[in-house]
Amino acid sequence: MRIVIVGGVAAGMSAATRAKRQNPQAEVVVFERGDYISYGACGLPYVIGGDVESFEKLVARTPERMRGEGVDVRLRHEVTGVDAKAQTITVREASGAAHSEPYDRLLLATGVSAVRPDWAETGAAGIHVLRDIPDGEAIEASLKGAKRAIIVGGGYIGLELAEALRRRGLSVVLLERGPSVAGRILDPEYQRRVQQELDKNEVDVRCGVNVEAVTVMDGRVSGVQTSGGLVRGDVLIVAVGVRPNVALAQSAGVGIGKTGAIRVSNRQETNVQHIYSAGDNTESVNRVTRRKVHVPMGLTANRMGRVAGVNMAGGEAHFPGIVGSAIFKTFDLGVARSGLTQHEADALGLDAVSVDVESTDHAGYYVDAAPIAVRLTAERGTGRLLGSQILGHPSSVKRIDVIATLLHSRSKIRDLAEVDLAYAPPFSSVWDVLLVAAGKLHKAAQQPNKETSMP
Amino acid sequence: MRIVIVGGVAAGMSAATRAKRQNPQAEVVVFERGDYISYGACGLPYVIGGDVESFEKLVARTPERMRGEGVDVRLRHEVTGVDAKAQTITVREASGAAHSEPYDRLLLATGVSAVRPDWAETGAAGIHVLRDIPDGEAIEASLKGAKRAIIVGGGYIGLELAEALRRRGLSVVLLERGPSVAGRILDPEYQRRVQQELDKNEVDVRCGVNVEAVTVMDGRVSGVQTSGGLVRGDVLIVAVGVRPNVALAQSAGVGIGKTGAIRVSNRQETNVQHIYSAGDNTESVNRVTRRKVHVPMGLTANRMGRVAGVNMAGGEAHFPGIVGSAIFKTFDLGVARSGLTQHEADALGLDAVSVDVESTDHAGYYVDAAPIAVRLTAERGTGRLLGSQILGHPSSVKRIDVIATLLHSRSKIRDLAEVDLAYAPPFSSVWDVLLVAAGKLHKAAQQPNKETSMP
Repeated sequence: MRIVIVGGVAAGMSAATRAKRQNPQAEVVVFERGDYISYGACGLPYVIGGDVESFEKLVARTPERMRGEGVDVRLRHEVTGVDAKAQTITVREASGAAHSEPYDRLLLATGVSAVRPDWAETGAAGIHVLRDIPDGEAIEASLKGAKRAIIVGGGYIGLELAEALRRRGLSVVLLERGPSVAGRILDPEYQRRVQQELDKNEVDVRCGVNVEAVTVMDGRVSGVQTSGGLVRGDVLIVAVGVRPNVALAQSAGVGIGKTGAIRVSNRQETNVQHIYSAGDNTESVNRVTRRKVHVPMGLTANRMGRVAGVNMAGGEAHFPGIVGSAIFKTFDLGVARSGLTQHEADALGLDAVSVDVESTDHAGYYVDAAPIAVRLTAERGTGRLLGSQILGHPSSVKRIDVIATLLHSRSKIRDLAEVDLAYAPPFSSVWDVLLVAAGKLHKAAQQPNKETSMP
Repeated sequence: MRIVIVGGVAAGMSAATRAKRQNPQAEVVVFERGDYISYGACGLPYVIGGDVESFEKLVARTPERMRGEGVDVRLRHEVTGVDAKAQTITVREASGAAHSEPYDRLLLATGVSAVRPDWAETGAAGIHVLRDIPDGEAIEASLKGAKRAIIVGGGYIGLELAEALRRRGLSVVLLERGPSVAGRILDPEYQRRVQQELDKNEVDVRCGVNVEAVTVMDGRVSGVQTSGGLVRGDVLIVAVGVRPNVALAQSAGVGIGKTGAIRVSNRQETNVQHIYSAGDNTESVNRVTRRKVHVPMGLTANRMGRVAGVNMAGGEAHFPGIVGSAIFKTFDLGVARSGLTQHEADALGLDAVSVDVESTDHAGYYVDAAPIAVRLTAERGTGRLLGSQILGHPSSVKRIDVIATLLHSRSKIRDLAEVDLAYAPPFSSVWDVLLVAAGKLHKAAQQPNKETSMP
């Protein structure tokens, strides 16, 4: 049994490890086109900001260690073709030489690439995306002597980098095409709070702005021309999203879903026999909506990889789907969400109702009590919990995991309202903000929708 | 409708507020024998330690505010008798004068009293318990000039006070009768970590020690005579437990459960018509074991009070029971538990299995990653989650709420292993310690019990 894995980061290495454990006799080979395997890509902004010592610290397992565990890792080997009938792949080595390799089971763990708009393709120095360690090292090199950063994109990476670069002493302009930062993460009311945190930390945020061109001086970026005028800057980071790497899959006849990512069964099987897919390049199922989604996230990639690894090695595992949990921080604001926002629920045609509660993250009388805001969303009538958004001090927003746990089992809001959460003054109010919100939403979900029931 | 409430702290005031909201026409009268209502008793140690500014800060609602909401509050009025047939109570005012008051519904929210062993009843100055604000004020007065504190009892209050008094600059000796501190809170392996935190902070802990007598000099405590010799100290705090205040209930023919606390229905009704009971003096049901328990806790008291308030005012509410959640900190160690410990499960005759996982509370490469230890316990065979114990930095142990949520709905360990918890490096490892523990326990719970299955 020869198991071949294309891509050696989260899903790929999880699959390799798990396959070897499932079937120690199996030959497991990982082809990684880059220089690193098994690194925490989610940690990249924090190396730049200084909260992680070095890029090397992000590497969880080296090729040597993997070889010690019986997994053959080949760096700087790019897989350029798949012959599904012959069960072979074409591999291009660093030298440029190509050869063919057989497989019994093949995993596509090719991840995503950062979107690079045409205007960013100038060849000038100082223009970056941030997806992998070499990207990070390049940004690091660009920062030497830089004074003024332009970040394009107000999603997770853009917001994390805004903090990182301010902490490095740069002035930061953040350009967002949409009407607000965090536009695809939160409801508008909560987007505004993220905006306020950026304001407070002197990030110059400009929304509704399209970048049209990069201006270059002496071979280096000197600014961007936008729909709102010229913005000067000596380092430019493009964080406008990611795109699943599916070209290899397509060349092998592997089906792509409506989301643009690779379509799989809950065993991570593609439509092509013996070819599996896992990680950021792959669709998952949202358990709240029961729809296929493409939400590239670190834990999801690792989970899918494990499932693929077990199944490829002859075991039986199923990926249960996700509920849409995400968490990040920018400056002193922690932001977490799970399930659906009110806006997302509306867009899906659900009859959803939300309540908002503002409280303190621990007893108001206890030192350093900080504000926390919670939105909870449920389905009217049934009372089924649909989602939550939480904003507060970073130490307080992991409360979202309670919501994720309830969403996973399609629970009702009542299941939260009555829970015996742990209380002491340094940890929460006697009625934790989640309980207050749940009680309020339990009532609200029983009321008819005024907008539709009123004449 | 005249609703009379005996006791104006957590359960009593929750009941009063909720009853008035349920039935604004009802007359609601609260008799409180002390000087304060509606204060957070759980915050008392933190006033002494300095993390809460003053005892006044603990007061959530004043009598004036309650009167504004239509609730009649009478301070320094002690209820000394109940005539259940006539539906009247006897009230003794501060002046000593007694009179009778009628009720349609009566709530006993009389709370608990600190246990005061005979040896503590010397009348000497400097000997204290800590249950209410006057106790706290008395301790505060005793601390002036004090150098060496003796705490008797290694439970929640004793451990919280150990930190508080060290922070006030006193040397602290903690005497515990049992073999370890936190003996009734955690399994032995986890008790040891609490002990280590006390050691690190130079609390002189002596376990297996019985206090036999107090030594007095010039009318003030000078030490205690113990089974392990004389211990010197100029302030002595007795934190050996609490006892439900049930004398008034008993005089009215109200039934007491095996736990020693007042027996109620899930509507908080006692066995005597029109008499309800709620709060620390009252039993609840543990949803994990389905047994009656007496676990006096702040949130539980508030919850029971609300249920009683609604029902007394003609509504319909049910108390769903507890799962045994608790959380506290001592110095830099946060401690949380929910459900059953392995020891408690064994004592109940359950076939329980535990796993332990040590990890970091956020990504190991991210700044200030701190150790976290999790024990998860499940029922062998069925895989039903039974409980958890978590120790770590105080900011990380509120993870216990995920466990409480699962215990509330009698979930299986698998329901935790597959949850899409929120991940980013500042918040957790990619596999949160809870997920790692759940995966491990899911496997362990499927194995037969070696101890009983081996010959």
